[in-house]
Amino acid sequence: RFSDCDPAGIVFYPQYLVMFNGLVEDWVEEGLGVGFRKLVIDRRIGLPTVRLEADFRAVSKMGDKVQLQLRIERLGSRSIGLDSRCTSADGSELRMQMKQVLVTTSLETHQAIEVPADLREAIGRLHGTLQH
Amino acid sequence: RFSDCDPAGIVFYPQYLVMFNGLVEDWVEEGLGVGFRKLVIDRRIGLPTVRLEADFRAVSKMGDKVQLQLRIERLGSRSIGLDSRCTSADGSELRMQMKQVLVTTSLETHQAIEVPADLREAIGRLHGTLQH
Amino acid sequence: RFSDCDPAGIVFYPQYLVMFNGLVEDWVEEGLGVGFRKLVIDRRIGLPTVRLEADFRAVSKMGDKVQLQLRIERLGSRSIGLDSRCTSADGSELRMQMKQVLVTTSLETHQAIEVPADLREAIGRLHGTLQH
Amino acid sequence: RFSDCDPAGIVFYPQYLVMFNGLVEDWVEEGLGVGFRKLVIDRRIGLPTVRLEADFRAVSKMGDKVQLQLRIERLGSRSIGLDSRCTSADGSELRMQMKQVLVTTSLETHQAIEVPADLREAIGRLHGTLQH
Repeated sequence: RFSDCDPAGIVFYPQYLVMFNGLVEDWVEEGLGVGFRKLVIDRRIGLPTVRLEADFRAVSKMGDKVQLQLRIERLGSRSIGLDSRCTSADGSELRMQMKQVLVTTSLETHQAIEVPADLREAIGRLHGTLQH
Repeated sequence: RFSDCDPAGIVFYPQYLVMFNGLVEDWVEEGLGVGFRKLVIDRRIGLPTVRLEADFRAVSKMGDKVQLQLRIERLGSRSIGLDSRCTSADGSELRMQMKQVLVTTSLETHQAIEVPADLREAIGRLHGTLQH
Repeated sequence: RFSDCDPAGIVFYPQYLVMFNGLVEDWVEEGLGVGFRKLVIDRRIGLPTVRLEADFRAVSKMGDKVQLQLRIERLGSRSIGLDSRCTSADGSELRMQMKQVLVTTSLETHQAIEVPADLREAIGRLHGTLQH
Repeated sequence: RFSDCDPAGIVFYPQYLVMFNGLVEDWVEEGLGVGFRKLVIDRRIGLPTVRLEADFRAVSKMGDKVQLQLRIERLGSRSIGLDSRCTSADGSELRMQMKQVLVTTSLETHQAIEVPADLREAIGRLHGTLQH
């Protein structure tokens, strides 16, 4: 998107994180079947990032089609470790990759809470071996 | 800022990176005395981030005043390693910290180039011991 | 998107303009078949907004699916008048509507230039009666 | 700011609206002395934009210093009409100007409510003739 790009004509790197945030949203909503908006607004549970490690390997230019991928690396009692990648649309060129730790928090206290049962079960169902 | 915050009422984490990008801009322009716009637009030299490691320790809420700090950790032949921190305004609470590697690139080829002499000298002058 | 919403849990209004910018991008690229990136990067032609009139009628909440529409209202010698709307996904509720004037500019001088022939022809073909 | 600018090297127009949003925030907080965060988070009162009319007269380039101004044009029972301008830092060149109508809303219902008494009084005190 034009709006993702900077005066150098390439994706402004914080925009990758915005894009991945959208992917996490879709994964929770559609992949796991846990309503993202319900989670945040009704149940007042947040999914903030507490740690991030990202490598930017190649630039993405305005108009490039890219592919975003997400893999669960670890499911802790109060955290979820994700491994994400952005590649060119055909998957051949790695643009950036990132390891990210999300925690589930109470939006009242902003303190970490246990990963809710439905979220945990959905992750377990889809990514079974991670539970062990 | 209201615009930096998300539906949880706290700073949306990619916005920290946008804020630090502004700090790097000011540091190059005012701290080092190397025109940032001249660098990017006239000299066609970019300063993209190639690696990032960030820890988010405490939330910043809408309206909080914060302090951003930047320390040069390493000056390589084609890269600059920065160590940044965001704290509460009085410095007492660490909100997030990050290690970041920038490379100097040609905006024609998006390939890394030597850190330009004036940038290197200015960094050396202000942060002398780093050169060794 | 979570990232489009503000601490009130609704779309932060400048984000509507970012979304419509994406629609204009897709319209030029896919609708008109004029490469948007080629236009901006290779041909150095910009499409900045010079006038905007927007009414925000109802809020969009995080997670809402919406529909964006664009209609050409006027094709001038150096400008394009657009009429855009955002509605709920089923089209029943108007969220916001906007009239917007874009001009074609040289990105060297940032002065208005004639709407390029291929853009004009493509608009004429798709929206024929507008030419008169 | 680099982050406000687009691949054409000029301020991406929705960013003007983000900047003005910051100005409204400061005006409420510091100008009127009504806590902005208290208003939104504790009192659950929003200040969404319901109408906008903007003219973009000249581009602002990356690194330009600009001046933002805000004038109250009208104080209604449930709305505030603002007249804003962005000029070059010395005020000599008009970059954009905008008329904007904000309404005060309940963040529970997103319906318009009366402008709260303290906000009304503070506006009256600072901009006395507007009341009539």
